[in-house]
Amino acid sequence: ASGEIIVALGLTEPRGGSDAANLTVSAKKDGSDYIISGEKASISYSEQAEYILMFARTGELEAKAHGVTCFLVPLDLPGISRTSYDDIGTRPVGRGSVFFDNVRIPENCRIGEENTGFTKIMVGFDLSRILIALQCIGAAQASIDETWQYTLERKAFGLQLVKYQGVNFQLAEFESQNESYRTLAYHALKLRDEGVDHTKEAAMVKWMAPKYCTEIIHGCLLLHGHFGYSKDFPHQQRMRDVMGLQIGDGTANIMKMIIARETIGSVSVQYK
Amino acid sequence: ASGEIIVALGLTEPRGGSDAANLTVSAKKDGSDYIISGEKASISYSEQAEYILMFARTGELEAKAHGVTCFLVPLDLPGISRTSYDDIGTRPVGRGSVFFDNVRIPENCRIGEENTGFTKIMVGFDLSRILIALQCIGAAQASIDETWQYTLERKAFGLQLVKYQGVNFQLAEFESQNESYRTLAYHALKLRDEGVDHTKEAAMVKWMAPKYCTEIIHGCLLLHGHFGYSKDFPHQQRMRDVMGLQIGDGTANIMKMIIARETIGSVSVQYK
Amino acid sequence: ASGEIIVALGLTEPRGGSDAANLTVSAKKDGSDYIISGEKASISYSEQAEYILMFARTGELEAKAHGVTCFLVPLDLPGISRTSYDDIGTRPVGRGSVFFDNVRIPENCRIGEENTGFTKIMVGFDLSRILIALQCIGAAQASIDETWQYTLERKAFGLQLVKYQGVNFQLAEFESQNESYRTLAYHALKLRDEGVDHTKEAAMVKWMAPKYCTEIIHGCLLLHGHFGYSKDFPHQQRMRDVMGLQIGDGTANIMKMIIARETIGSVSVQYK
Amino acid sequence: ASGEIIVALGLTEPRGGSDAANLTVSAKKDGSDYIISGEKASISYSEQAEYILMFARTGELEAKAHGVTCFLVPLDLPGISRTSYDDIGTRPVGRGSVFFDNVRIPENCRIGEENTGFTKIMVGFDLSRILIALQCIGAAQASIDETWQYTLERKAFGLQLVKYQGVNFQLAEFESQNESYRTLAYHALKLRDEGVDHTKEAAMVKWMAPKYCTEIIHGCLLLHGHFGYSKDFPHQQRMRDVMGLQIGDGTANIMKMIIARETIGSVSVQYK
Ligand SMILES: Cc1cc2nc3c(=O)[nH]c(=O)nc-3n(C[C@H](O)[C@H](O)[C@H](O)COP(=O)(O)OP(=O)(O)OC[C@H]3O[C@@H](n4cnc5c(N)ncnc54)[C@H](O)[C@@H]3O)c2cc1C
Ligand SMILES: Cc1cc2nc3c(=O)[nH]c(=O)nc-3n(C[C@H](O)[C@H](O)[C@H](O)COP(=O)(O)OP(=O)(O)OC[C@H]3O[C@@H](n4cnc5c(N)ncnc54)[C@H](O)[C@@H]3O)c2cc1C
Ligand SMILES: Cc1cc2nc3c(=O)[nH]c(=O)nc-3n(C[C@H](O)[C@H](O)[C@H](O)COP(=O)(O)OP(=O)(O)OC[C@H]3O[C@@H](n4cnc5c(N)ncnc54)[C@H](O)[C@@H]3O)c2cc1C
Ligand SMILES: Cc1cc2nc3c(=O)[nH]c(=O)nc-3n(C[C@H](O)[C@H](O)[C@H](O)COP(=O)(O)OP(=O)(O)OC[C@H]3O[C@@H](n4cnc5c(N)ncnc54)[C@H](O)[C@@H]3O)c2cc1C
Repeated sequence: ASGEIIVALGLTEPRGGSDAANLTVSAKKDGSDYIISGEKASISYSEQAEYILMFARTGELEAKAHGVTCFLVPLDLPGISRTSYDDIGTRPVGRGSVFFDNVRIPENCRIGEENTGFTKIMVGFDLSRILIALQCIGAAQASIDETWQYTLERKAFGLQLVKYQGVNFQLAEFESQNESYRTLAYHALKLRDEGVDHTKEAAMVKWMAPKYCTEIIHGCLLLHGHFGYSKDFPHQQRMRDVMGLQIGDGTANIMKMIIARETIGSVSVQYK
Repeated sequence: ASGEIIVALGLTEPRGGSDAANLTVSAKKDGSDYIISGEKASISYSEQAEYILMFARTGELEAKAHGVTCFLVPLDLPGISRTSYDDIGTRPVGRGSVFFDNVRIPENCRIGEENTGFTKIMVGFDLSRILIALQCIGAAQASIDETWQYTLERKAFGLQLVKYQGVNFQLAEFESQNESYRTLAYHALKLRDEGVDHTKEAAMVKWMAPKYCTEIIHGCLLLHGHFGYSKDFPHQQRMRDVMGLQIGDGTANIMKMIIARETIGSVSVQYK
Repeated sequence: ASGEIIVALGLTEPRGGSDAANLTVSAKKDGSDYIISGEKASISYSEQAEYILMFARTGELEAKAHGVTCFLVPLDLPGISRTSYDDIGTRPVGRGSVFFDNVRIPENCRIGEENTGFTKIMVGFDLSRILIALQCIGAAQASIDETWQYTLERKAFGLQLVKYQGVNFQLAEFESQNESYRTLAYHALKLRDEGVDHTKEAAMVKWMAPKYCTEIIHGCLLLHGHFGYSKDFPHQQRMRDVMGLQIGDGTANIMKMIIARETIGSVSVQYK
Repeated sequence: ASGEIIVALGLTEPRGGSDAANLTVSAKKDGSDYIISGEKASISYSEQAEYILMFARTGELEAKAHGVTCFLVPLDLPGISRTSYDDIGTRPVGRGSVFFDNVRIPENCRIGEENTGFTKIMVGFDLSRILIALQCIGAAQASIDETWQYTLERKAFGLQLVKYQGVNFQLAEFESQNESYRTLAYHALKLRDEGVDHTKEAAMVKWMAPKYCTEIIHGCLLLHGHFGYSKDFPHQQRMRDVMGLQIGDGTANIMKMIIARETIGSVSVQYK
């Protein structure tokens, strides 16, 4: 990928993103075309994207995941409009809704067979979840490194901050946590390279890294005293960005449901 | 107080706020006046305030806390200038630096005796720290209450969110934590009413409430899914505000130093 | 109560204690007597007790809580036998099963009306849960106090341990946590004195205090270095005892279910 | 190693184990022999061991680590006596003091050069710390696996326990944590295999695994309800064993000091 074209991912809808299998945006066959109707919500790159890889219902609602088809849709078609949300983070990316008002697309926009779209996306998540975790780990490491340096230079009560265990023990804990998520993420990537199932490992690191990296970055912010609270220092932005990565591609609760299911089977799933 | 006049509090300086006793902004006697020079940094209401209750060095630096005097200074005097920081929260309050460039004030701006200012401010912190904690607790409770309601209405996988233990156990934990900080804060206020020393209790609730209320509000934000990440929902703002209250009036580390000192004495203090 | 007679409490059965309303030990009416059959499990004081206040099914199993009656049964009746478990803590109390093999008791052993026993016990739990919390808080405070003293005397690297923030910050955190549970427990007792419902507050402190006091005591044990690991020091025993109090009278999960139900209603209950 | 001979490790002394470099048990040259005097405390296998690899002072106390020599001493020599502590865990191993009352040993018991013993032992710790972590991880995994099975079989409120998120989310979290420590431990071993410095990684996993595996095992114990509290179930024993591994070979505080020093240098060390 040259990175020249931005393709948005259209899964979430106003009624919910966790329970994606119940999505309702519809793609109705009309001759050799499809007519797409409904709202995709919370879409990253909603304004910049040129295409959207989207999931729409071609089968019955009762068929759940098995009635979902994948389409690649150019975003300049008539009937498509977009909005932009006012978010607290990941602002260069942006996020918004994409509305489909009886949008006609040719059959060759369909990716794969009808009603088989959902499993495809789920497999893709195994990779994207690891990559999201690594983004968080990288941001946290930058904050940790900068905080070692800052506390080396800043003094209080006559000593460099780094000399206080109340400071360096926190940083040692952050180093340890972050290294444990990093090795877990690399392990998941390695399983992937070897063609071994890694859905469980990807889910593990997807919930741990964003959650605890938010805490690590917050801790680094606080070690900068009042400076950390102004926009002149980077920690507040990293923290706001990483918070978004906790939600996108599935929340911690959904990841724990996946881990339980991968370990003990669908007996752990409560709803039918 | 009618609340009609805003008085800023000037303690922190660029070289540090934790170690306030070593402050360096100077007040030099000149006849019956004082001449004030230096920068006060990180001052709330820096732009709106009409007066500043400030602490300046009248004695030797070696005298530390015992060389500090308190002054009430009108902020429209010649030689005073102010800046404003670009913060991530508590924006209606604002924060900035106040510069004193050989500012001449009459003797009657002095509050109390020379070199006795520092202990006065420290006693005042006992109250303000409890009040800060209560602000955090109130903000967290609002987020908790709204999240119970939200999860009552929002469905996923066919059930109201509130039915999932992964949701209602979190909220039950938040209720429990917040109630424990609230009862501790009220206990500290009660000791104060009874004239009993409560420096330790104030320090306890000052570090716990801002820290854990930030986490509670963050948890509530996450339970709103992607909606929580936009500025249309209040949790993100509360979280940003409460983060500032973690720093102002003393960080968690400083509070723990106070708790240790109040419990076991100054043997626990590392620096001299 | 003079404390001279020990009365055991018989609620739990082999099939479960959390879901007590489904209990199966039966009390069948036979003329003016009752015949009791079945096993009560996990009963404190199983060996020392002279009486047992026990709950048996007089109605249908489907009637759940509404088919349960309370009896006070002398433990020296024919048909009663007892065992003792080998526990890791609370050993002076002890715990075991009480077997009822067609035990005949007169009608006047019945406490209250038939099929009304269950609500009675539940109300009693509000008090016992607060008292359990206070036991944990007391044990934790003893460990905290002793650890301040120990770290005042013990040296490492030429300094008293108490001088290291890695030591005194931990103790300051323990003091803060424990004080927050204590004020919450007292608040619950105060509500009780005032005749105000306090089921929620009792449940809060019942899960928090045993859980976190276990951690506090464990932390104190560790601050004693290798000495803490031998039975010559009291922390390991307190820790083992407090662990039992986490389970008796309802686990943390059950407490969170109660808090959710008390806050948002039975909508939060998953099972029917 | 055939495992046929048990060699104890003698580093700790009554005055402290963290600050081992200041050890005081002495080895005085007498002709071609050494005379050893003093008490080694908290020695694993104190009763079973046939030899002790011990560290004694041959130089000045002021020389600290650089005045320490390593010896391999048979434990049946005249002047050696041993005691055994009454511990709460790792009882098959045992622990006690070894007293040296003017014990004469030939020069060939010395391992390496005089005054160079200390660095040798420190390098050895890099491996033993990883191995300790793996022991904890293995014990925790056994408890996790068994708890999945137990909660699959046990019912409450009409459903298998494993169906409740309050149960399966905890287990999913335990799986995630444990996997992150495991991948970190393997990463440290891999660095070792490659001849790359791994003191920092070994210290990381040495404090995290024992601390959090204790919590994991405790959580598994609690998910077994009251059964977990009796000695019939293995979790309580694993928990007591893992608690000992938190102390032996260096506590969490000492590991954090090492991590800080390895990251930012000896500036982070407070004492001289
Ligand atoms: C920055 C950002 C970028 C995003 N980018 C994209 C994108 O490009 N394309 C796209 O399609 N989507 C995107 N999303 C949406 C994201 O995938 C969803 O927000 C997410 O899947 C959650 O769905 P929801 O917001 O509808 O929350 P809901 O599904 O309504 O869930 C609300 C809360 O309930 C919890 N919950 C839900 N079900 C259960 C259950 N059964 N048990 C326990 N708890 C439960 C959740 O954990 C969550 O905390 C993005 C979101 C963010 C914040
Ligand atoms: C929103 C906001 C409003 C504020 N309003 C005011 C105001 O109105 N007036 C005013 O005077 N000040 C105000 N402050 C400043 C505040 O009081 C200081 O930021 C605070 O006391 C910390 O001082 P510092 O920022 O200089 O951090 P430093 O003192 O440099 O400390 C940096 C970090 O090191 C830690 N640290 C410092 N010393 C030690 C030690 N001995 N051991 C262990 N850790 C240590 C601290 O915990 C902190 O995390 C405000 C700050 C904020 C964020
Ligand atoms: C030291 C001690 C003293 C005791 N003394 C007495 C006594 O004197 N008299 C007496 O009657 N009993 C006594 N008990 C028993 C105690 O009340 C029960 O152990 C407790 O109620 C839990 O029941 P259980 O052990 O059957 O566990 P279960 O009910 O089988 O529960 C097992 C686990 O599953 C969890 N769980 C259960 N249901 C749910 C759900 N719906 N959602 C999520 N999680 C769930 C629980 O939290 C627990 O962790 C004592 C127990 C101990 C340890
Ligand atoms: C099960 C078990 C097996 C063991 N086996 C052996 C063995 O075979 N051979 C052997 O030689 N030893 C052995 N030990 C001893 C072990 O190595 C020591 O207990 C450990 O190094 C701590 O030393 P200490 O007990 O003297 O605690 P201390 O050094 O007195 O420390 C007490 C507490 O203070 C903290 N502390 C100390 N210094 C600082 C500081 N500068 N900053 C912050 N906190 C600090 C420590 O973390 C600890 O919590 C064993 C211990 C156990 C529990």
